[in-house]
Amino acid sequence: MAWTDGFIAVDWGTTNRRAYRIDKSGKCADRFEDDKGVLSLSSAEFPDAVAEIRKRLDDLPLLLAGMVGSNRGWIEAPYVPCPAGIDDLVTALVRPSEREAIVPGVSFIGDGRADVMRGEEVQLLGAAAAGKIDPDSLVCHPGTHNKWALLHGGRMHDFRTVMTGELFSLLKAHSILGDLLQGVVEPNAAFKQAARHAIYDEKLPSDLFGVRASVLLGRSKKEEAASYISGLLIGTDVRIGLATPSRAVITVIGRPDLTGLYAAAIAETGRETIVLDGEQCFLDGILEIAKRI
Amino acid sequence: MAWTDGFIAVDWGTTNRRAYRIDKSGKCADRFEDDKGVLSLSSAEFPDAVAEIRKRLDDLPLLLAGMVGSNRGWIEAPYVPCPAGIDDLVTALVRPSEREAIVPGVSFIGDGRADVMRGEEVQLLGAAAAGKIDPDSLVCHPGTHNKWALLHGGRMHDFRTVMTGELFSLLKAHSILGDLLQGVVEPNAAFKQAARHAIYDEKLPSDLFGVRASVLLGRSKKEEAASYISGLLIGTDVRIGLATPSRAVITVIGRPDLTGLYAAAIAETGRETIVLDGEQCFLDGILEIAKRI
Repeated sequence: MAWTDGFIAVDWGTTNRRAYRIDKSGKCADRFEDDKGVLSLSSAEFPDAVAEIRKRLDDLPLLLAGMVGSNRGWIEAPYVPCPAGIDDLVTALVRPSEREAIVPGVSFIGDGRADVMRGEEVQLLGAAAAGKIDPDSLVCHPGTHNKWALLHGGRMHDFRTVMTGELFSLLKAHSILGDLLQGVVEPNAAFKQAARHAIYDEKLPSDLFGVRASVLLGRSKKEEAASYISGLLIGTDVRIGLATPSRAVITVIGRPDLTGLYAAAIAETGRETIVLDGEQCFLDGILEIAKRI
Repeated sequence: MAWTDGFIAVDWGTTNRRAYRIDKSGKCADRFEDDKGVLSLSSAEFPDAVAEIRKRLDDLPLLLAGMVGSNRGWIEAPYVPCPAGIDDLVTALVRPSEREAIVPGVSFIGDGRADVMRGEEVQLLGAAAAGKIDPDSLVCHPGTHNKWALLHGGRMHDFRTVMTGELFSLLKAHSILGDLLQGVVEPNAAFKQAARHAIYDEKLPSDLFGVRASVLLGRSKKEEAASYISGLLIGTDVRIGLATPSRAVITVIGRPDLTGLYAAAIAETGRETIVLDGEQCFLDGILEIAKRI
């Protein structure tokens, strides 16, 4: 039986998992999401957690991606080094049994630095394999750890992680800026001003404190501070991402709330963006992998 | 009775307080330190907390500096704007009674930005008034929020805060880098390499994640990660600080563990440093203020 006769795709992250039943036509026929992330399970608990997925969706082969393949997951699927295409992911699938396959992450070493990703590769390479993005493009994938990936011929040649989402969360939950960050973040004028500032004159750890001083001294509005701080962080991220060999058009893949903010910051550099939904890219990518098993 | 006939100086911060009995000769004759910081007291509790200081050290006039003069402290002492010298601090002392005086903080507005300090001004302006540093100098004052202050004629004309210490603490306590940051930070080769990198090619929110990737991929040693990450943060800070009109010699005032790290990072730019102990500068500064009341 071919995997494309029907299978279950799981995007299994650190704090949650999303499972999808994919039917013969390649469409998602059923799905669920819960908080049984990798960190909530010991490695001995994975077989039961996998059985539960089948019980809820159907007794089908399972294609698993994300942190489930890390050293804190079920079985480690070693990183595939760049340059990596979707065929390289398929070759390096790790098979707990005939009926399960774990997608490996991707690593980059070069340029005096090292980087890793696990989970985003399905969306990035899948969108390219499915023809949704230019096979020669710069892709931005916002999240806890934003990834900037450079594709050539549909293969990932280089990527860089910027821990923007995590820094925002840390500042919001635990820092002296916490009370300023409880407001809503929007791609408004304050956001764009901060993004421009960060793209062209970056002093992030100083500018962050400056927001607090500016509010204390009555020079800026407290209700705009969350958008401004988000603009500083995302603008810094965009400056770093666009320092790689850049393109006139940038593809942004991810959750709509985040892709909207990144698209607004990238627009401040005069570049255009194509925005794609991350969940749909995951489904496209996992289907491309299933077709090749 | 003049204040210099004997008084008590208190450096009263957010999380702790240090109190010193200063005798007629201007020397510290007794001292204590505890965790009764400003955030542990309601504003109604300050009179008792002040009485307790007198009970422990002597029934003398009190000169108070630090967050005790903030809107979360005993009585707010509004910021004195730059340019500010020690005489401006004295003029703006806030007097809860004849026998107590609270030193105000300093603010900077200009250059499209705003900044505030509260506590460091005693050390910075005090060291200048006491002749311990060149009245025309660039001073670095590491701490939770590092301050870079530009003095002309012994008055502070400009300063900038960089929240390096707080970022380090956040990353250590709450981030994905937490386990890498439990080690000892030293101004070793890893620290200096990271500092050079951050001073000349800054991509902080990306470089931070790169440390984790590098350890995961076996490209760098876990036991060097804390020093390397500290080097990235302090190097970024030094890059920002030295972007102000700079000097060949930089004065670094603060706790010896921190001033050593900053001096090592500044040395990577070819500049010399003069390192002064922060506690001694506080005592020098508070005495200079007492002389002028």
